[in-house]
Amino acid sequence: MTAAQVDLNSDLGESFGAYQIGYDAELFPLLSSANVACGFHAGDPRVMERTVRAAAEHGASVGAHPGFRDLVGFGRRVIAASPEDVGADVLYQLGALDGICRSVGVRMRHVKPHGALYNHASTDTATAEAIARAIASFDADLILFALPGSALHQAGEAAGLTVAREAFADRAYHADGNLVSRRQPGALITDPAEAAERMYRLVTDGTLTSIEGDVLTLDIDTICTHSDTAGAADIVRAVRRRFDEAGIAVRAPGIT
Amino acid sequence: MTAAQVDLNSDLGESFGAYQIGYDAELFPLLSSANVACGFHAGDPRVMERTVRAAAEHGASVGAHPGFRDLVGFGRRVIAASPEDVGADVLYQLGALDGICRSVGVRMRHVKPHGALYNHASTDTATAEAIARAIASFDADLILFALPGSALHQAGEAAGLTVAREAFADRAYHADGNLVSRRQPGALITDPAEAAERMYRLVTDGTLTSIEGDVLTLDIDTICTHSDTAGAADIVRAVRRRFDEAGIAVRAPGIT
Amino acid sequence: MTAAQVDLNSDLGESFGAYQIGYDAELFPLLSSANVACGFHAGDPRVMERTVRAAAEHGASVGAHPGFRDLVGFGRRVIAASPEDVGADVLYQLGALDGICRSVGVRMRHVKPHGALYNHASTDTATAEAIARAIASFDADLILFALPGSALHQAGEAAGLTVAREAFADRAYHADGNLVSRRQPGALITDPAEAAERMYRLVTDGTLTSIEGDVLTLDIDTICTHSDTAGAADIVRAVRRRFDEAGIAVRAPGIT
Amino acid sequence: MTAAQVDLNSDLGESFGAYQIGYDAELFPLLSSANVACGFHAGDPRVMERTVRAAAEHGASVGAHPGFRDLVGFGRRVIAASPEDVGADVLYQLGALDGICRSVGVRMRHVKPHGALYNHASTDTATAEAIARAIASFDADLILFALPGSALHQAGEAAGLTVAREAFADRAYHADGNLVSRRQPGALITDPAEAAERMYRLVTDGTLTSIEGDVLTLDIDTICTHSDTAGAADIVRAVRRRFDEAGIAVRAPGIT
Repeated sequence: MTAAQVDLNSDLGESFGAYQIGYDAELFPLLSSANVACGFHAGDPRVMERTVRAAAEHGASVGAHPGFRDLVGFGRRVIAASPEDVGADVLYQLGALDGICRSVGVRMRHVKPHGALYNHASTDTATAEAIARAIASFDADLILFALPGSALHQAGEAAGLTVAREAFADRAYHADGNLVSRRQPGALITDPAEAAERMYRLVTDGTLTSIEGDVLTLDIDTICTHSDTAGAADIVRAVRRRFDEAGIAVRAPGIT
Repeated sequence: MTAAQVDLNSDLGESFGAYQIGYDAELFPLLSSANVACGFHAGDPRVMERTVRAAAEHGASVGAHPGFRDLVGFGRRVIAASPEDVGADVLYQLGALDGICRSVGVRMRHVKPHGALYNHASTDTATAEAIARAIASFDADLILFALPGSALHQAGEAAGLTVAREAFADRAYHADGNLVSRRQPGALITDPAEAAERMYRLVTDGTLTSIEGDVLTLDIDTICTHSDTAGAADIVRAVRRRFDEAGIAVRAPGIT
Repeated sequence: MTAAQVDLNSDLGESFGAYQIGYDAELFPLLSSANVACGFHAGDPRVMERTVRAAAEHGASVGAHPGFRDLVGFGRRVIAASPEDVGADVLYQLGALDGICRSVGVRMRHVKPHGALYNHASTDTATAEAIARAIASFDADLILFALPGSALHQAGEAAGLTVAREAFADRAYHADGNLVSRRQPGALITDPAEAAERMYRLVTDGTLTSIEGDVLTLDIDTICTHSDTAGAADIVRAVRRRFDEAGIAVRAPGIT
Repeated sequence: MTAAQVDLNSDLGESFGAYQIGYDAELFPLLSSANVACGFHAGDPRVMERTVRAAAEHGASVGAHPGFRDLVGFGRRVIAASPEDVGADVLYQLGALDGICRSVGVRMRHVKPHGALYNHASTDTATAEAIARAIASFDADLILFALPGSALHQAGEAAGLTVAREAFADRAYHADGNLVSRRQPGALITDPAEAAERMYRLVTDGTLTSIEGDVLTLDIDTICTHSDTAGAADIVRAVRRRFDEAGIAVRAPGIT
């Protein structure tokens, strides 16, 4: 089956005060979805405002990118937070970004947990359920981005949310569908052409070659490229071009 | 003119993590409006959730109580923030509380800046306008609580907001309508009976005796009692009883 | 063997800005050691200054009480921090308190990690070693407070530090010397007389009855009572009186 | 009179967590003094450790660079803090950096307040005195960097501190010795050759041409170049080369 469309997303708006990070300006024209940091692991109110405006200008769909409250750790360290803490923290961050979206006149359309929260919610059911419930109680039309088959994916569906299944253009996979740990050699796909070819095959054929050499079957709706490496824009550009050439529409989930 | 109704408000939800502050449980049954801290000067997502639920149970109207980003200073120290910073900070905090309100199923109805932000916006026009614009861009139906005649009052009206003019039950006034500085003797009204009598006269007669002994004319819509002193509940109780006896309805502004 | 002396410690200085917590004023006259929060999980520079001055007035020995950087969680949630992060965070907090001690003219004498950091370092060797190395590199004469037999105890000795083995007056023990989890019934010893009798027997006889009813042998140097419950001062008072009556000197470790 | 020596300083270690800022690697070989951020306006414990080690490797003298507690504002916004707050905050930050210096085996030698704290202390006597007292109570041998003739300069001397009078290589001056505001055209000296010539003349002749064209007399001990602009290293390199050619020793104050 040839997919009519797929989404390209990246984490943006992760600057903070005087601190600049990421390649937002290069990435915005290439993306259909922007996951905007909400101030806990990165981002501040003015960065959020700037990022939402930029998304609006480029026609990118805006989503919340809530993380653990850990600015110094950039949200990459799991905090042993209770599900109640996680739920309230997510709600707070969703609302904060939504406040800025309303002011700018943009609709917030999706949610993707950040870093350690995303990873933790992929396997920890209580955390995943707390996130899904928080989202559903805020706006049941929000689309949840999740690793296919993860606890978060399941919790999202159980909470009645539409889940966009996510793949990573810049990461290698194991045969079981899990990402290869960043600490392992070969974990990162850094060659834009290779990333583009892998993503083309994934979208058109539903398959991906694992790091072990097996062919992996994966249904996905959105493709993430991590924005905090210098080569990110090259990868997204190559993926985008491959899709454009093949007539695959790059479009945010829920947009038809 | 006898006022048909007046609002009683207090700043609530100012606890943080393991830290408890204020007399929320005692005050909630007496109030018609709760100004809920939004995490910058006080409050955290779980405290906010708890406070919004309590407001809903007691039928108190919920408003945002945004402050400077200064937890250690409890929002009582002016930060030389640009109007752009203030506007974005207010928007972020409004949205965050609104996220929690939506989750609980409550409508956020008003905004009252906290502490140093309230005082600064009373005289600094650029700050006042930044706050008013942020509120109007988020939800033009929100009611702004402001000191009558202040820069914030004017900015609110200029931005098209309904402004609820605020008096303080526990504070002495100068003849010009300004509050007596806390550092001056006699600044605080601590006797519940005196506070109740003053507020009764203010609401029914529109007058108040200043610390200098002059009679001051003041039109007001809402009466604040600061919640962080032990006697706060006694003052609010006395004021409330006086109003109940006189048949003055205690009701949030905008509610008829 | 009759112990000539034992130390009584508590965690103090855990207020923050406008937020008051703990029973410092009641506890100070009863203690020989004060573990002073260093600003990451609790405490701020002015609270630290006030607490160090109070310790000096009461003749209590001052120690640092570093925690995870988690004010909203009061340092009670493990953060998946690398040993390098933990080491630098501990060093920073030791230095900060030492700066205040130097200004007041007091010598900082011990270190006791707080909450989740203490618990995590009791079993996680890498974290324990990072803490011990940080302390030793700062001042090898500092005494480390640790659970007897824990990873932290061992790491402290391996780093050449004097370790004061710690017991808890307000907590029940398992037969293997571990504390009963707070979530289990019977975990807390709340009766002052019982706590006093248990601690007297522990200090004079080296034994303690476990929650299972077994007699446990334990060599200890210092006894902690958690300061954040209302009954804390009653427990410490009872323990202190029992020791005073029995002629057991209450003295900070390293002081003879 | 030809000066035998002068100091070249810059603000370093202002990165935070995942956020990189400044040109530390380029600047370190050129400087004699490094002002290291202490975690309130910038810097974190691991960045501080890395920066102190780098200073040690390059033989640069280490000083504390305390700021207002305002990470999102990078310490550039005045906070209306009481002198007591400022004093305790400075003490905390001095101690924290000193803890790291002790661990690395380096001696902390000077203190230079950052940004808004530096500017505020240049004119506000109570703030200046609080800073000077905090430093003197911590270590009276620390050298205070201050604008010549400022309130901070005077407070430092009154507290018995050695004061290093500071000039700015990248800034224009008014005839009265004050810096031209950054918001005014011509405020920044961006041409390395011009900066080098100005600083050479200042050090050898004690004079500087003001933006108005007058010749200004100024006795200085240390020259700062702000590190957060791309051209900073070029300016410092040009200044350093000019001094090297002229046989002017570049050396931290207090080092002979």
